[in-house]
Amino acid sequence: MGETGAAASQRPVSVAVVGLGYWGPNLVRNLIELPAASVACVCDTRQARIDTIRRRYASVPGVGSFEAVLENDAIEAVALATPVATHHALASAVLEAGKHVFVEKPLAASHSEGLELIELAERRDLVLMPGHTFLYSPPVNRVRELIASEELGDVHFISTSRVNLGLHQPDVSVAWDLGPHDFSILRYWLDETPTHVTALARGYAIPDIPDVAFINIEFASGTIAHAELSWLAPSKLRRTTIVGSQKMVVYDDTSNEQLRVFDSGVALGDPKTFGEYRLSYRTGDIVSPHIEPAEPLFLELADFCAAVRTGSTPRSSKELGLEVVRIIEAVDASLQRQGARVEVDELLPTTVVPFLAR
Amino acid sequence: MGETGAAASQRPVSVAVVGLGYWGPNLVRNLIELPAASVACVCDTRQARIDTIRRRYASVPGVGSFEAVLENDAIEAVALATPVATHHALASAVLEAGKHVFVEKPLAASHSEGLELIELAERRDLVLMPGHTFLYSPPVNRVRELIASEELGDVHFISTSRVNLGLHQPDVSVAWDLGPHDFSILRYWLDETPTHVTALARGYAIPDIPDVAFINIEFASGTIAHAELSWLAPSKLRRTTIVGSQKMVVYDDTSNEQLRVFDSGVALGDPKTFGEYRLSYRTGDIVSPHIEPAEPLFLELADFCAAVRTGSTPRSSKELGLEVVRIIEAVDASLQRQGARVEVDELLPTTVVPFLAR
Amino acid sequence: MGETGAAASQRPVSVAVVGLGYWGPNLVRNLIELPAASVACVCDTRQARIDTIRRRYASVPGVGSFEAVLENDAIEAVALATPVATHHALASAVLEAGKHVFVEKPLAASHSEGLELIELAERRDLVLMPGHTFLYSPPVNRVRELIASEELGDVHFISTSRVNLGLHQPDVSVAWDLGPHDFSILRYWLDETPTHVTALARGYAIPDIPDVAFINIEFASGTIAHAELSWLAPSKLRRTTIVGSQKMVVYDDTSNEQLRVFDSGVALGDPKTFGEYRLSYRTGDIVSPHIEPAEPLFLELADFCAAVRTGSTPRSSKELGLEVVRIIEAVDASLQRQGARVEVDELLPTTVVPFLAR
Amino acid sequence: MGETGAAASQRPVSVAVVGLGYWGPNLVRNLIELPAASVACVCDTRQARIDTIRRRYASVPGVGSFEAVLENDAIEAVALATPVATHHALASAVLEAGKHVFVEKPLAASHSEGLELIELAERRDLVLMPGHTFLYSPPVNRVRELIASEELGDVHFISTSRVNLGLHQPDVSVAWDLGPHDFSILRYWLDETPTHVTALARGYAIPDIPDVAFINIEFASGTIAHAELSWLAPSKLRRTTIVGSQKMVVYDDTSNEQLRVFDSGVALGDPKTFGEYRLSYRTGDIVSPHIEPAEPLFLELADFCAAVRTGSTPRSSKELGLEVVRIIEAVDASLQRQGARVEVDELLPTTVVPFLAR
Repeated sequence: MGETGAAASQRPVSVAVVGLGYWGPNLVRNLIELPAASVACVCDTRQARIDTIRRRYASVPGVGSFEAVLENDAIEAVALATPVATHHALASAVLEAGKHVFVEKPLAASHSEGLELIELAERRDLVLMPGHTFLYSPPVNRVRELIASEELGDVHFISTSRVNLGLHQPDVSVAWDLGPHDFSILRYWLDETPTHVTALARGYAIPDIPDVAFINIEFASGTIAHAELSWLAPSKLRRTTIVGSQKMVVYDDTSNEQLRVFDSGVALGDPKTFGEYRLSYRTGDIVSPHIEPAEPLFLELADFCAAVRTGSTPRSSKELGLEVVRIIEAVDASLQRQGARVEVDELLPTTVVPFLAR
Repeated sequence: MGETGAAASQRPVSVAVVGLGYWGPNLVRNLIELPAASVACVCDTRQARIDTIRRRYASVPGVGSFEAVLENDAIEAVALATPVATHHALASAVLEAGKHVFVEKPLAASHSEGLELIELAERRDLVLMPGHTFLYSPPVNRVRELIASEELGDVHFISTSRVNLGLHQPDVSVAWDLGPHDFSILRYWLDETPTHVTALARGYAIPDIPDVAFINIEFASGTIAHAELSWLAPSKLRRTTIVGSQKMVVYDDTSNEQLRVFDSGVALGDPKTFGEYRLSYRTGDIVSPHIEPAEPLFLELADFCAAVRTGSTPRSSKELGLEVVRIIEAVDASLQRQGARVEVDELLPTTVVPFLAR
Repeated sequence: MGETGAAASQRPVSVAVVGLGYWGPNLVRNLIELPAASVACVCDTRQARIDTIRRRYASVPGVGSFEAVLENDAIEAVALATPVATHHALASAVLEAGKHVFVEKPLAASHSEGLELIELAERRDLVLMPGHTFLYSPPVNRVRELIASEELGDVHFISTSRVNLGLHQPDVSVAWDLGPHDFSILRYWLDETPTHVTALARGYAIPDIPDVAFINIEFASGTIAHAELSWLAPSKLRRTTIVGSQKMVVYDDTSNEQLRVFDSGVALGDPKTFGEYRLSYRTGDIVSPHIEPAEPLFLELADFCAAVRTGSTPRSSKELGLEVVRIIEAVDASLQRQGARVEVDELLPTTVVPFLAR
Repeated sequence: MGETGAAASQRPVSVAVVGLGYWGPNLVRNLIELPAASVACVCDTRQARIDTIRRRYASVPGVGSFEAVLENDAIEAVALATPVATHHALASAVLEAGKHVFVEKPLAASHSEGLELIELAERRDLVLMPGHTFLYSPPVNRVRELIASEELGDVHFISTSRVNLGLHQPDVSVAWDLGPHDFSILRYWLDETPTHVTALARGYAIPDIPDVAFINIEFASGTIAHAELSWLAPSKLRRTTIVGSQKMVVYDDTSNEQLRVFDSGVALGDPKTFGEYRLSYRTGDIVSPHIEPAEPLFLELADFCAAVRTGSTPRSSKELGLEVVRIIEAVDASLQRQGARVEVDELLPTTVVPFLAR
């Protein structure tokens, strides 16, 4: 186009948003606010969805055909907010068309699908980024800092509840719908993928679609975790407790004080005699650190645009996205074996691609 | 003794309290307030513990020897608040001495020990009662009514957190210490014993003594449950959520409003076409029913005295106490098998006593 | 224009929004969503404010001159979101130009200014409506129903706290800024204007601009009220307690459960002997009624458009708006007299217009 | 008695507790636990009250006659937990009998009565101590430290709510019953007595006995305060907000975290131009300091015993007690004048005793 490199790197990324269901409009709203992006068009097969968007953003073109998006050379990147089952086919088509792609979480419906997408993106040298929004949440990042700085000490265990009344997904279980949030956060905080998972789940509202799951998780470092995921609950709960050897943290995403740091713990003194332990409990101040508010989705899309323009690796990387899929598959395997304890690695294909080696 | 039957049945039960650690003083305080009981003496091998009690209750005799309690014919019943490991030996001695016995929960340190105590009590026609105090808690009983009256509909699942910082027990795991509360409540609410349990636990403060446990529980009726038990937590939590097909309940023992009943749920309409489900969510009023406060321990000890005087079966029966022990043993078995799913019945001895047949 | 009356009555009201500071953009957003309205233009003397709006709503024209709005015959109504001091001059100009006018609360900077606006609107047969948004809040209306149906019994007293850190207004006191909310709600609930007010206030951040006020309020019916208003507070509080002779209500605008109805009270039995009273306290269930959520500002603007099209009296009437101004003036009078108790009526001009007679 | 001075100073103070209604039993329980005291007897004209106490503390003698207490030379001090109207007569009699006296708050039913008690105690060189228990509350003392250390900056205002359903007092208003708590705390924190009070109150349950009061309070330093006192409320509230120029504190006596310190505030920059102010809001961390729990009543009674033995001035001094009475009298004066603003000093007798000079 004749523009210089510097100008090109500052030019907004031209993004098409495909899928205008529950989440797509949030992508549109943030991309419109984001200086690094411009919304090339919105795309959905349902005209009513397009009309709803255009009532608010009259200047954004609406497109009914996915192929029209692929064929439009002015579009550099596509953000997909479509059902999980479509991620592989649609993202592959976007990459094959030479465009960067942002895929709502989870990356794909299976580990092998995710692997194929990653290989395709690497081959074409294009950005493939899953939308693990919580990795851009200010309190989630503050917890990561508290862990990395060893202020919490060793992380003993993490217990999390992500429950609400609804919204049932007709096509995927609660583990596929809500699990990616917690699994991506755990992966981000602990810098390790679980070794084992054990799951108990039931589907009450829709046969064969689990709407409540209790998931036990083990890490090689010794940390354990429990995740309660449910679409059946009396009230919304987004509460995670992180118990470290030095301090403890409660992260409640629905509270005005999203983080509370407890300077509490227990210490084991020298045993006086065999079999006799002397424990001392420490209860100190509780601090709710001020956290500057920011919209995670806005930061996430900025990271995507930076990756497109500069080639940087986004925090929500495709490799992390693949590991999240692997954990969900292990949960499914445990459920299929009636709640048996499952080794996450046993599900790996024999030929492991290099980036999965840790 | 020459008194008439009517007078005898109204005479206070003469009770000795053995074990004046954390819980024993609570037994003393309630027995002193209870018209149906009189405190014959308090007993502990540690004179300092006796002195502490007698500073407040100067008229209650203190005894340093357990044998002196057994030999005192004026004592009709003994309340044991001693470590779990001593329950079998001490309770057996009490029963052999021809006295009724109240044993703090859990009933015994193993299923076989519990079975022996039950057989001995039946042979001697004496009351053996485990102290499952929560069975006398007004909100726990209100939930039982809500379930029994089918106001909640089918009980889909129950999720409970019973966590706190401390008090670590030097001799038993958190499952033996806190588990009896939740297992006895679940047994009481659902009128069934679990079929399977799966547990994940770690001991962080004291090696080999689990201080956090995540326990998945399955019932034959289809109900599932999860219990989080921990002595390592930033703050006290006693929160149980019961999700029924018609209503949902949150029971929080630390709140001013111990029960909250949510008239909320999800309904599945007729599928219009294959694979398409139509769900409707219902969000109605939330009611915190007024519950007349009462001290559960007081009611429990009154039930014990009634059993002694009238031969009635206490709500906290020895059979229920034995089933609680059986569930904890299954949790231990799961932990020994690295978190495998364990069938509760497989741990039963081959000769099942009649009262365990369900 | 040749269109029939029916078509005209369904035609969206063409509204200009003047003033794009804190509140104006909310008016724009809701008017755009409202089928009964169309946004003719947005107007501000600051081009940057117009640009911000147009980045989101590119199809809405921006106008820098208020006169241009007045001269545009296609504009039927103007919504003013400008400082209080400008309300009289701007609203007068709108009415003189033959257009309907919606004025953000409070209606005017003084009772006499408000009176002039009302007389002008009546003379020109145009809609003049103050923006008392809380009159359209679902929980506020539910409380009004509870009072009107006498479910609460006699309303004994109302205590309200509306505090936050900021936003200080440079030109008006906290009583002029936050007071209109509570005074309009009290007026709406009780259907009466206070007889007396007593106020204590201080200005800490800006000299002579009170940023905290404690206001005692008396009604002829016997009800009393207290309002705590402050821009200096550790956290946001929007809590109103209504104590009736039969039931009590807590209305918390920041809570998930905005209303909680307490079936509690005290009853006075017959005195047994002179000077001896027997009271019985009643503590019953607490109910958080489900309230269908709705955006009050949306409902308010719909009410404005209905008034424009049909001539109906909006719930937030100009008469109610004038009474609110009168209450604030009484608060100011009390402050000027160092906290003396002030009769609200004494501030009235001698010639009272008919609609103020109650 | 021949014992040496050192032994005498360590001998427990022999205390009689007179009045076994609501509060008296708490005095008994704490005095029994207190090494520095011994309970000589409990006294009430109602035998049933004595029996209730003696069921728990069988070794404590019960006495039906106040004269018998006065005549008993072994009794060194009397703790009065009787109705306010009796304080002057009973405390005078105790002092006249040469015994020290602890009087439940408020010190007396009027300023002149209180003055007489003080003069009598000084003349007889005996301890006269009012029971302002909150002066011994750990969180109240922590707030005093935060103020004294100027960590909060200037104290701008204090807003407090002390409300509950019941217990109505048949003989005194809510201002006499609950007011002493807040007035003593304010006096203790601020080290000054209010200059003016303005009150609005109503008696709903019992005619002429106010059960709700809104009280505005002014101090010479510029601090203002508001106290909401009520026996008619949907739920118990003990919430005090202290807004300083540097930090703000919420003290909630019913919460697990009794103090929360907010590092928040507003700063006024240099005005750029006349009439234009630039404010910056600061929102920092929120800290719930760990406060070692302690029973205030126990500490208070220990302070009384120390005063008896060593002649020290108790923190809850008779002078502070008199000032509290003076504030309540000013509240009553405001109510009698229909809510007029009352100068606290105008109620003082012309001859002010020296200790009241500040």
